Amino acid sequence: MLPERVRIVEVGPRDGLQNEQGRVRVEDKVALVDALVAAGLQHVEVGSFVSPRWVPQMADSAAVFSAIQRSPGVTYAALTPNLQGFEAAIQAGASEVAVFAAASESFSQRNINCSIAQSLQRFEPVLAAAAQRGIKVRGYVSCVLGCPYEGEIAAVQVRDVASAMLQMGCYEISLGDTLGVGTPGAARQLIEVVAQRVPRAHLAGHFHDTYGQAVANIYACLLEGLQVFDSSVAGLGGCPYAPGASGNVATEDVLYLLHGLGIATGVDLAQVVQVGQSIMLALGRQSASRVARAHAAAAVPR
Amino acid sequence: MLPERVRIVEVGPRDGLQNEQGRVRVEDKVALVDALVAAGLQHVEVGSFVSPRWVPQMADSAAVFSAIQRSPGVTYAALTPNLQGFEAAIQAGASEVAVFAAASESFSQRNINCSIAQSLQRFEPVLAAAAQRGIKVRGYVSCVLGCPYEGEIAAVQVRDVASAMLQMGCYEISLGDTLGVGTPGAARQLIEVVAQRVPRAHLAGHFHDTYGQAVANIYACLLEGLQVFDSSVAGLGGCPYAPGASGNVATEDVLYLLHGLGIATGVDLAQVVQVGQSIMLALGRQSASRVARAHAAAAVPR
Repeated sequence: MLPERVRIVEVGPRDGLQNEQGRVRVEDKVALVDALVAAGLQHVEVGSFVSPRWVPQMADSAAVFSAIQRSPGVTYAALTPNLQGFEAAIQAGASEVAVFAAASESFSQRNINCSIAQSLQRFEPVLAAAAQRGIKVRGYVSCVLGCPYEGEIAAVQVRDVASAMLQMGCYEISLGDTLGVGTPGAARQLIEVVAQRVPRAHLAGHFHDTYGQAVANIYACLLEGLQVFDSSVAGLGGCPYAPGASGNVATEDVLYLLHGLGIATGVDLAQVVQVGQSIMLALGRQSASRVARAHAAAAVPR
Repeated sequence: MLPERVRIVEVGPRDGLQNEQGRVRVEDKVALVDALVAAGLQHVEVGSFVSPRWVPQMADSAAVFSAIQRSPGVTYAALTPNLQGFEAAIQAGASEVAVFAAASESFSQRNINCSIAQSLQRFEPVLAAAAQRGIKVRGYVSCVLGCPYEGEIAAVQVRDVASAMLQMGCYEISLGDTLGVGTPGAARQLIEVVAQRVPRAHLAGHFHDTYGQAVANIYACLLEGLQVFDSSVAGLGGCPYAPGASGNVATEDVLYLLHGLGIATGVDLAQVVQVGQSIMLALGRQSASRVARAHAAAAVPR
């Protein structure tokens, strides 16, 4: 029933640090990316190419890309909302790019200032340029299990946005529970509905742990046949809608789940715990990973 | 597949506070129990009757029992390791008692200074006295998914201890992942093996969140037909084997899971969040419940 192998997309350096209050130096970001790859992560979201006015934390993404060591076979991804961002990402050496839409009309309007349909139109030139250069494009859909403005989101609406992104040329659609409000039953129903139009092999799960449900939701999605999950070392990122609450599910906690289920990831959990401790030291706050805290407590005999 | 209704056994006032560093006044314990019942919890473990030399935090259990308000239909339980403790618990007005064994021989030796077989023998007079007075006895089995000294524990060993406790007269056996090391696949396999001898209707799940797996493990047990779970408001208790790590799964996070799955509990989540905030204020530390933290962050629009 469960997959033999799962691919982890490590989003800490981008989705994580973008939502941290503390600023992180370029050399710390470079060390973070290099250490994550050394721990076995084969897909790392390194940065984004958006206006520094909107996301000042990512203004140094080109510098980070230029300083990281490149390991063969590893995907170094960048978020690129438009053609200008795409060109900058490619120039910086991104091996893959990602575009970002919402399943909620209100969230789309308030977060990226346009309708869902308009946001998809804006990606078209990015996807065309990427196709021309043979660059893979990953699609994010946010608010798949709830929206801060609309509450519940119909699964068919998520399905339609995900399907449109697949048809535009995205090779994989990452379904994001941006608020972390979902529970396993809703997650499974969502996958079943979205899979009517987007085959499971093209879907990824992106869960936030705001209400402590992320690991359970990932287990639910594994039972539904998903084999790719996004996570953030040390739970980097917090929750932009509730400062102090948990945000992205921690890579450590996801690895603990997967390895416990006998699912291979190719990633060394103990090394990721160390990487998380280093970056949290730089940020001056405690890790959100329960596995990392248990390791830090150290007295836990295994 | 999933049950329509789940019973929560709230263990915060006993299993939780027993493992907290901070001392809590009798009146705060009384207020905690009364508020938990007011929130809809129908089964609360109020205290224990053991030597105060071993567990000083519970030395005031009789005083707590004598001061709480009694609601009809609510079970006010006490942990009673021996006949002396049982008599004291009944005198204090406990409506039910619990006994505690381990699935690991080494843990039993080090934690209660006797073999598993000896510990079961010690319960016999308690169960005989309880039967005479018509008092229900609940059994705990600890270390069901791992032991700090032995590592993995065979599911058949858990099955045999649980089965012995059922045969001795316990009406329900709570299976405790004391270290929080379990993952959903192991939890499901455990239930399948234990259910060879103990019908699922007599089993409860007791999970610790040390490695962030408790909510996923509870979901796994729901899929296996379990309908009773122990939890601790605000995650009271921490982890005695790893100070600073998470301990008992938080009642708030379990309620969020269950209600999200459409499972009735009769408990008001928002009220439990408030109860948790009050006791954490008394203890002077942050809640371990992610739901509680999200509520505290308050900005989360639902």
